Amino acid sequence: MAVEKKIEESLEFTPRFDDDGLITAIAQDAETGNILMTAYMNAGSLALTIRSGNAVYFSRSRRKLWKKGQQSGHVQKVEQILVDCDQDCLILKVRVDRGQCHVGYQSCFYRALKKDTGKKLKFIAQKVYDPEQAYKK
Amino acid sequence: MAVEKKIEESLEFTPRFDDDGLITAIAQDAETGNILMTAYMNAGSLALTIRSGNAVYFSRSRRKLWKKGQQSGHVQKVEQILVDCDQDCLILKVRVDRGQCHVGYQSCFYRALKKDTGKKLKFIAQKVYDPEQAYKK
Repeated sequence: MAVEKKIEESLEFTPRFDDDGLITAIAQDAETGNILMTAYMNAGSLALTIRSGNAVYFSRSRRKLWKKGQQSGHVQKVEQILVDCDQDCLILKVRVDRGQCHVGYQSCFYRALKKDTGKKLKFIAQKVYDPEQAYKK
Repeated sequence: MAVEKKIEESLEFTPRFDDDGLITAIAQDAETGNILMTAYMNAGSLALTIRSGNAVYFSRSRRKLWKKGQQSGHVQKVEQILVDCDQDCLILKVRVDRGQCHVGYQSCFYRALKKDTGKKLKFIAQKVYDPEQAYKK
């Protein structure tokens, strides 16, 4: 279809926000290629991310902008923003220090499904910081 | 909160499907670390993926299971499934051959935002196959 093809082949950045005004953003470590987390952005947080060079998301639970690292200090410096074919998903290639997940791990993806069960997980990473220290007032 | 903590620290695989019964799945090349695409799964497609070892998604537009590569031949062999802290997003580490995006690229993320404009994209990849050949009947 013509509209789809335009979005796919165009060099115009036309991010497609969903009915709630949000787009999925994947933060990927620019150095290691590890996927660190996924979150959502609205138009405001995306504009702020582009302008500031630091990742700013939109918290669905708190209904407000969420500057990554504001509380924990674990900011994400955005090196590059990629968009997918239908422009409804973004990758942020980011430079980070330790601990991008609020649970204490470097990545939110610290568990993998064990083979043959389909029900049980195993840890594939170790915590890199103490969230109680990082998030205390 | 206790429920959240259980989900985060548990080794029980309890994927959290959204109100439409879907969960986001990111396909990542197991060899290169490149993110290839994102799609959705429902409980049925996830179970089929685990059982068969090949990625099966749920097409929101067609409202049905979508065996990746069924038409194009570009299947995804799933090596590992990772889940994030709140268990509402999956990573599929996949082995693939050429051309995972229906537009003709290896990855759906073939464009990056040009710096300083915030409006214009640039291509960062070249097509690796001809979709018209791959998708013709």
